[in-house]
Amino acid sequence: MSFSITILGSGSAVPTSSRNPTSQFIECNGRHFLIDCGEGTQMQIRKFGISLQKINRIFISHLHGDHYFGLVGLLSTMHMMGRTKEIDVFGPKGLKEIVDVQLHAAESRLSFLVNVIELKPGSDGILFEDNKLKITHFPLSHKIPTSGFIIQQKKRERTLMIDKAKADKVKVEYFHRLKKCEDVVDENGKTIAYLKYTSSPPKPKSYAFCSDTRYHEPIIEFIKNVDVLYHEATFTEMLLDRAKATRHSTASQAATIALKANVGELLMGHLSARYDDGVQHELEAILIFEKSRFVNDGDIINLEA
Amino acid sequence: MSFSITILGSGSAVPTSSRNPTSQFIECNGRHFLIDCGEGTQMQIRKFGISLQKINRIFISHLHGDHYFGLVGLLSTMHMMGRTKEIDVFGPKGLKEIVDVQLHAAESRLSFLVNVIELKPGSDGILFEDNKLKITHFPLSHKIPTSGFIIQQKKRERTLMIDKAKADKVKVEYFHRLKKCEDVVDENGKTIAYLKYTSSPPKPKSYAFCSDTRYHEPIIEFIKNVDVLYHEATFTEMLLDRAKATRHSTASQAATIALKANVGELLMGHLSARYDDGVQHELEAILIFEKSRFVNDGDIINLEA
Repeated sequence: MSFSITILGSGSAVPTSSRNPTSQFIECNGRHFLIDCGEGTQMQIRKFGISLQKINRIFISHLHGDHYFGLVGLLSTMHMMGRTKEIDVFGPKGLKEIVDVQLHAAESRLSFLVNVIELKPGSDGILFEDNKLKITHFPLSHKIPTSGFIIQQKKRERTLMIDKAKADKVKVEYFHRLKKCEDVVDENGKTIAYLKYTSSPPKPKSYAFCSDTRYHEPIIEFIKNVDVLYHEATFTEMLLDRAKATRHSTASQAATIALKANVGELLMGHLSARYDDGVQHELEAILIFEKSRFVNDGDIINLEA
Repeated sequence: MSFSITILGSGSAVPTSSRNPTSQFIECNGRHFLIDCGEGTQMQIRKFGISLQKINRIFISHLHGDHYFGLVGLLSTMHMMGRTKEIDVFGPKGLKEIVDVQLHAAESRLSFLVNVIELKPGSDGILFEDNKLKITHFPLSHKIPTSGFIIQQKKRERTLMIDKAKADKVKVEYFHRLKKCEDVVDENGKTIAYLKYTSSPPKPKSYAFCSDTRYHEPIIEFIKNVDVLYHEATFTEMLLDRAKATRHSTASQAATIALKANVGELLMGHLSARYDDGVQHELEAILIFEKSRFVNDGDIINLEA
């Protein structure tokens, strides 16, 4: 089992020499996703050694360019590199037209199917679910309709204590049922208790992505108790007025949401280009929520570590 | 007087770690232009220390994404950085819709006027002209309507030999007329010959941009005798079939056009991602046209040198 986040872009609307616009690559239990896809995302994917073609779902939070201008280029490169596997792209109303207009202008027909699934403004719900994980969305509060996303690992099977089972000569054919929390009665009528031969699996992990948004307490009910929260912190409190005017958050506000939502750890991103780094943001956030840090392009956050 | 080209992107459809998609920044006699604007162009502009806001005309050759996916991001950043000066963007039919759809989705109104001027497929003519230079376009032959561009310096005034004029006590008020090739009769009835006090100005320079295009001899009449020709050379002759199928050129074909058009120098670009560098392209081209080279991102070609 695995769960990691690679930060492909930690900057905001104006890219800088060290920070690309927003994008994150998520690997969770063998599934590969992209959240947001700012300009230059495909170059970052290459730079950080990620396999482009493994990505089979893309989630676009909103239609400000720093969150999606790299999307059609990414799809085009997937096509140039011979992709045949279809891809789902979730995003706000309007995304399909943006993709279609550009593909139409190029008179190009991609070698794979792109399913653009447009989300209703203000809605929440499940976007994807299988036996390994679940991805949901919920509304943030920004200038235009914007979604947050949560990726949750599914509860795993209990772990078989294989040496103990073998020592007690438990038949291999019972292993599957024991892992499913089932006591097994063998051919001699003897009960083999699953609790004796299996141990609790590690707790499933969860990750919430919140960008872009103003300070907005209604999101707390959605992100409560997640292990890792990414929350934008474009500004520090010095520029609270600017944050309010642009419907962005300060580091203190991000930390307050983290505290109130009782999350395990806070990652901050979406740094305004006016700051050289996120040091001041960290100092500010830590006063409110200790496990806070500002991410950089190329950071890998391993939730299984 | 000045004339230089900065290569912002020398790669083709699939960007690599060392080559961005096509874009060139042109400085000519104090005017600043961009030709093409592939994804990541604004980051390259920053990387190479170019002043974004000086650019006031952008020319888009065609609507394959590797030639324009960076455009709306560039305009957005100009807006974020407080631009008020309007900008002209020349490109094929369809470009205006692409720009409008994305600005509309962001519900953003730029702080400056963007005039998108759409060119008729297959047309040629003057796009811009003032007392310093002239920019024209002409049709290339690619999969979709594509324009080449030519930037020509205007003929300059003759250069005043100021020491000689002063030594002979020629009045300053006559200087302007002498530079305009006018003989002046002074108050004593003496003729002051402009040829005696002025020298010929340097020959005006010209630059032609041809990307993307298959081998297409009709372009020769437009680019004949330019000082510097940029012609795409996506492939080498080994992949001539691939060049034909994709309506691109090989290095030999680019060199043949350079030779037949009697240009001063050939710059090749738009390298397919399958090549590590343009060395083989250069070897191939030089056999046909000696003054050939493959450009790299960051190269500055000074036509006044």
